[in-house]
Amino acid sequence: MIETPYLLFLGDAPDMLAAKVAIGIRDWRPEYAVGQFRMDGCNADLGLPDLSLQEAKAKGVKTLVIGVANRGGIISPAWKKVLVQALEEGFDLASGLHNLLRDEPDLKAVAEATGRSLHDVRVPAVKYPIANGIKRSGKRCLAVGTDCSVGKMYTALCMEKEMRARAMKATFRATGQTGILITGNGVPLDAVIADFMAGSIEWLTPDNEADHWDLIEGQGSLYHVSYSGVTLALVHGGQPDALVVCHEPTRAHMRGLPGYQLPTLEQVRDTALALARVANPDCVVIGYAINTQHMKEEDAKNYLAEIERGLGLPATDPYRFGAGKLVDALALI
Amino acid sequence: MIETPYLLFLGDAPDMLAAKVAIGIRDWRPEYAVGQFRMDGCNADLGLPDLSLQEAKAKGVKTLVIGVANRGGIISPAWKKVLVQALEEGFDLASGLHNLLRDEPDLKAVAEATGRSLHDVRVPAVKYPIANGIKRSGKRCLAVGTDCSVGKMYTALCMEKEMRARAMKATFRATGQTGILITGNGVPLDAVIADFMAGSIEWLTPDNEADHWDLIEGQGSLYHVSYSGVTLALVHGGQPDALVVCHEPTRAHMRGLPGYQLPTLEQVRDTALALARVANPDCVVIGYAINTQHMKEEDAKNYLAEIERGLGLPATDPYRFGAGKLVDALALI
Repeated sequence: MIETPYLLFLGDAPDMLAAKVAIGIRDWRPEYAVGQFRMDGCNADLGLPDLSLQEAKAKGVKTLVIGVANRGGIISPAWKKVLVQALEEGFDLASGLHNLLRDEPDLKAVAEATGRSLHDVRVPAVKYPIANGIKRSGKRCLAVGTDCSVGKMYTALCMEKEMRARAMKATFRATGQTGILITGNGVPLDAVIADFMAGSIEWLTPDNEADHWDLIEGQGSLYHVSYSGVTLALVHGGQPDALVVCHEPTRAHMRGLPGYQLPTLEQVRDTALALARVANPDCVVIGYAINTQHMKEEDAKNYLAEIERGLGLPATDPYRFGAGKLVDALALI
Repeated sequence: MIETPYLLFLGDAPDMLAAKVAIGIRDWRPEYAVGQFRMDGCNADLGLPDLSLQEAKAKGVKTLVIGVANRGGIISPAWKKVLVQALEEGFDLASGLHNLLRDEPDLKAVAEATGRSLHDVRVPAVKYPIANGIKRSGKRCLAVGTDCSVGKMYTALCMEKEMRARAMKATFRATGQTGILITGNGVPLDAVIADFMAGSIEWLTPDNEADHWDLIEGQGSLYHVSYSGVTLALVHGGQPDALVVCHEPTRAHMRGLPGYQLPTLEQVRDTALALARVANPDCVVIGYAINTQHMKEEDAKNYLAEIERGLGLPATDPYRFGAGKLVDALALI
């Protein structure tokens, strides 16, 4: 559990693309994003107040979150200076970088001396159980995809936002680095030991009120041969009551696998549903979330209408056109 | 890679059940099993020569394999004495125990001083790649099961033995601790990090001669919610050309999951085949391997005949009645 609120460290980000994590926090947890910290040469700007460490402290910030990718795979001396100072000022640090903060001797030493925490969200901090498959109270919705990186995290976040706006009980459950930094907790599923994958998702989505929904961030795809095992652990550990099928229509082949075509929406719907019903016989597919970012608005709308006609369930781009249709469907379960 | 041949350490095994690993080595790699080492109070006997460390050395043994479960989860002082002596005599040690040899300071110190290796096969010794899904040469057969522990390892080992007897090119590929100790190498798949599961199986079953078969040891079941992700990584990383469906007909529920019924053979056949064809469109199911150990011989034969009639493919208990039918089917691919 990472303490909030945050100061978002942008370092010397060359552009906005490098600041993906910080953008996610600003967009989805604006109440955590008190300000940004930019160094000389930073070309990213979140539109948040630029705060010094002292100013952030005065505003109650608890954690400095590295919201930017690092260049060349190293934590530069210029970054290091700020990070050390932040620890000394009493902030925790949180990072999803491949280089772990804890592997930097100076950061580790200062954190120990000051009693601050280093949160490396890429590695599990919990000893997860083996899944027991026992039915849990409360409800769960899982985003499954035709491929990796088709918008599963954004779909779950959009649905959570819409549900909260309707005063429904809803919690986004992060299963990847960005999601964990956005919400302050979650399971870095790709880094979990094989035997404990499904158990980690049971742990992440425990018993809850009967009308509470977990919106579980999906990972990979049952049709992506590199990561399908991770996806199936989500399907079985998550025990979903509802599935949303996510898709990006302009992709020429599976991400990172030039020889592999994307499956159809029908294939993902049928395969995921049959497997999900092993853990929860009442599971249903409620609709389709289509990432239309590479399509003109009219084309996108036509495409969505075509899916609704052909497959008989709601289809939307939840980020572009809202998640209302999907939440309407959830509300009926 | 564990150096062979082996001296099989039985310690103070209370009974034969505790010596499962040693029995597996004796049965499946008799050429590695030069002798056994038994301590006072040992109630297991493999029918192999009892050898002192010196005698084993003279016979060319390279590795002392712990072929027995330990009591109470500790490596006892009595065991330790033998293990230290074995290192000093120039043997490597190999173990599938949960307690790692390398975590015992005295064993670690002696191994370093003598230059010997400690093989803890429960933990990966290799940095596996992420799966790339590229089609590999040679052929692969994977055992998939209705449940855990239904005989997938034995099925693959029986098929390998039969194929070698027919001078077919065949290699059993171990994916669990027992299999790794039997053959001297493999992937401890349940201990691999999620993102690298499928890649570890690609690594285990590399390009090979066109008429060479890998017989891949299965793990878990697509229908076992605790471990299904591990199974799907095998299905996609293994790129099988052939699947054998394994089953144990007397089981009342999924292993460790009292609320879960076993799937039917048809369900496993159809689900596994559809998923396998994502990685290899030519994959086929060649038959059924039934573990009939809890059935009378006549009942077993009737059951197998019924499956063949109903499902139209060969069915056998490969351990009890031979793997010939399955190998006949493989030979046609």
